[in-house]
Amino acid sequence: MNLTKLKQHKSFSGYTCVYQHDSKMTKTPMKFSVFSPQETVQHCTIWLSGLSCNEENFITKAGAQQYLANTDTMLVCPDTSPRGLNLPHEHDDYDFGSGAGFYVNATTEHYRNHYRMYDYISKELIELITKNFNIKTFSIMGHSMGGHGALMLGLREKDLFKTVSAFAPIVNPSECPWGQKAFTGYLGKNRELWQAYDATELLRQGYQHDKAILIDQGTADEFLESQLLTDNLQQAAGKVGQQLTLRYQDNYDHSYYFIASFIRDHIEFHLRHRL
Amino acid sequence: MNLTKLKQHKSFSGYTCVYQHDSKMTKTPMKFSVFSPQETVQHCTIWLSGLSCNEENFITKAGAQQYLANTDTMLVCPDTSPRGLNLPHEHDDYDFGSGAGFYVNATTEHYRNHYRMYDYISKELIELITKNFNIKTFSIMGHSMGGHGALMLGLREKDLFKTVSAFAPIVNPSECPWGQKAFTGYLGKNRELWQAYDATELLRQGYQHDKAILIDQGTADEFLESQLLTDNLQQAAGKVGQQLTLRYQDNYDHSYYFIASFIRDHIEFHLRHRL
Repeated sequence: MNLTKLKQHKSFSGYTCVYQHDSKMTKTPMKFSVFSPQETVQHCTIWLSGLSCNEENFITKAGAQQYLANTDTMLVCPDTSPRGLNLPHEHDDYDFGSGAGFYVNATTEHYRNHYRMYDYISKELIELITKNFNIKTFSIMGHSMGGHGALMLGLREKDLFKTVSAFAPIVNPSECPWGQKAFTGYLGKNRELWQAYDATELLRQGYQHDKAILIDQGTADEFLESQLLTDNLQQAAGKVGQQLTLRYQDNYDHSYYFIASFIRDHIEFHLRHRL
Repeated sequence: MNLTKLKQHKSFSGYTCVYQHDSKMTKTPMKFSVFSPQETVQHCTIWLSGLSCNEENFITKAGAQQYLANTDTMLVCPDTSPRGLNLPHEHDDYDFGSGAGFYVNATTEHYRNHYRMYDYISKELIELITKNFNIKTFSIMGHSMGGHGALMLGLREKDLFKTVSAFAPIVNPSECPWGQKAFTGYLGKNRELWQAYDATELLRQGYQHDKAILIDQGTADEFLESQLLTDNLQQAAGKVGQQLTLRYQDNYDHSYYFIASFIRDHIEFHLRHRL
């Protein structure tokens, strides 16, 4: 599990870095960015990015570092898919294949050997970070496809991820075009196999997180009605008793400007509630 | 002076926007980004970016908006050169031509009709912002090439720009490779013509700003010794009595991570001292 440091920039008294390692799960080199506020940290928040992003979008645009400065919590931002492959249709669209791994373990013929992002995040990356940075606890958050990844991974791995939050998550991918396209391509047409990777379905199946989940959603988000389907998660959470703090933010859209405006609240939420 | 709004994103209770207009100075369409914390503002801080940047680098990466939220001061970030032309050698290198206007009025044959960035910033943009946003006072800051632009414009237009600050500025372009290449290309080989656009030379000639100038410079900046020549400005300022707050920041480099780490101080400096 060799880590190669590709970049290092002092930031807010700590360091923002980009690392690369050879992943056993994806059988490709994988990159992730990190903010380490101090030499010794104990906790880690994982950020999962959305469609078309890589490991650097969040760390360059969200302004998150300042809110972790001088704490004992680091930030880790993995890439959104394997890279450097040339699988059938992998690079055709922004919403499937490269940049769009959807945090699932693919089962379809062309993708199952590499697109294993669920195991990559929840096993390999966690082990790598734990060993290399001596981390004791993890929390998880993300945006859009990555917001859904945080909800889905948080519900399925609730002992691992102490707190869960999301910005503008796709909450019910089985029921929206982005999710249907990705799940068909990675998991095939049998919709029963999709349920294990759909946060709203997981709630309906009885998966719950012990802590309240925090979600911020902009009311001017151009994908709210067609892709995000926020109501579906709210209704499912209400029915099963999952605590949920869902905040509609007036006139905010789907962009990083929205994330930057509220990332402080999310980081403080993770710092406050993880224990 | 028609302004076209190309983008608008709610940010920190205000709006981050990108505008375009047809410039008389450059005879091209020019873009600039804006953060307006409220509908009505009275003051404006201009940000000048460095080599290879456009009107969006600072507004997406520096995290500046939060420190202007709920104030009466807007932020305006112009592009670093005209665009859409195809002048000889204009797109050959990152440090000359497009993305590298150096905030001068060119006099050389191929560039003099379009590369008039000094007049574009100090006259056309100021007039446009004043009229469209009802602005009363301006201040100026920038990074690297734009840090020098802020120093140079601030010294020459001290009644217009009430306060001046810079991150990692090229302080003496006549004496470094970046500046020599740009000034030769825009102004020709007669070095006497360069002095009007060189902040250190302007200090030596007697130009001064009434207020102390704030400069942050990272000690791990990869361009410090070869291009920035920070000492030259410090010595010239000392000789002529220009007040200067020059802060060397330990282990910070030339990147936007450095800018993000200290932009709060610069914005507070401009808010505090402009009156």
